[in-house]
Amino acid sequence: MATQRRGEETRSHILDVALECFARNGYDATSVAEICSQAGVTKGAFYHHFSGKQSLFLDLLERWLQGVDVQLEEAHLEGRSVPEELLHMTALVGRVFQEARGKLPIFLEFLTKAGQSPIVWQATVVPFRKYQRFFAGRIQQGIEEGAFEAVNPEMAANVLLSFSVGLVALGLLDPHGADWAQVAQEGMRIMLDGLRKHQRDSAMNDNKPREGMGR
Amino acid sequence: MATQRRGEETRSHILDVALECFARNGYDATSVAEICSQAGVTKGAFYHHFSGKQSLFLDLLERWLQGVDVQLEEAHLEGRSVPEELLHMTALVGRVFQEARGKLPIFLEFLTKAGQSPIVWQATVVPFRKYQRFFAGRIQQGIEEGAFEAVNPEMAANVLLSFSVGLVALGLLDPHGADWAQVAQEGMRIMLDGLRKHQRDSAMNDNKPREGMGR
Repeated sequence: MATQRRGEETRSHILDVALECFARNGYDATSVAEICSQAGVTKGAFYHHFSGKQSLFLDLLERWLQGVDVQLEEAHLEGRSVPEELLHMTALVGRVFQEARGKLPIFLEFLTKAGQSPIVWQATVVPFRKYQRFFAGRIQQGIEEGAFEAVNPEMAANVLLSFSVGLVALGLLDPHGADWAQVAQEGMRIMLDGLRKHQRDSAMNDNKPREGMGR
Repeated sequence: MATQRRGEETRSHILDVALECFARNGYDATSVAEICSQAGVTKGAFYHHFSGKQSLFLDLLERWLQGVDVQLEEAHLEGRSVPEELLHMTALVGRVFQEARGKLPIFLEFLTKAGQSPIVWQATVVPFRKYQRFFAGRIQQGIEEGAFEAVNPEMAANVLLSFSVGLVALGLLDPHGADWAQVAQEGMRIMLDGLRKHQRDSAMNDNKPREGMGR
């Protein structure tokens, strides 16, 4: 067991070092030899954990996305209503930016590789489609709870996803152009107001304003 | 005058050919010599129009953004209300995707260069900040017209911009993952509903639903 834990630590250490190398010099300019030298491991140890540079690259992507998944799970807890849950997720955006800081180059290289290699494209698009399904499920739930209008959940999920992706892209490209964590909150608030059953509907049904539906 | 027009045609032709070369082989792998050979022009003619490959690259970006500006101007016409205008802009998204088709690699290279070169970064970020101001101006106008709540216009502008950028990114990355033109419409509809003065406000003011404020 101790050996297995040491193996896991070595693997994680190689991933950390590789991420630094990629961020500093770019993916193409970084060799396996350099990663090994920087990490202080033999090539044998490297190839014990990774079949090559591309597979390490995909593992980095997976590790980053696992972090996102954990945050989504956390927001899902504690019997929150769907709108509360979505706002809670949005509050975590600040943390996402903190973790992503300085990683714009590597992020862009992921996407560039995705445009060139079917394997990387798969690894990039599959998680996006998973988030589409995740958001669609939450919106469906919100409709059933009566919090949202009967929108098309897949469509609305793509709206939330587009907003999230654009926010991360702009936040990385232009970190000082706005308080992006606050933009995240404001955007989610606006979209939730747009998805919420309109007060108008209830006003037309019972002819008096219902409490707790507005902000 | 005829000479000037021919010069303009040559310049435009070189830009077209360079865009094809960049899209096919990438920016770094494309040389000025290859662009000249593919375009059937001498290096002398090339350097008459461009000081080098990077300046040509920035001119391509500028040309593409001019196309976006023309579309924004068009939507601005004809005494439309601000919400109508924003919905009209959104209807143009289909055209943007048509023009952008197959250009994801070059788009990503722009952004990757932006992360590496201060000159390209400037050329990339300045237009985004221009669109921030543009959207903020439209939202301010919408507030004055009474169509929107008194939101912070800069903040709401960044929400619209994030959504737009993410939509284009996802649409290029995963063209068959959704009907992105329809996602654009749905997203703008949801955000406009969120920005719109709530029916609740008017219901509380005059205690009956006002027509023409909902969808």
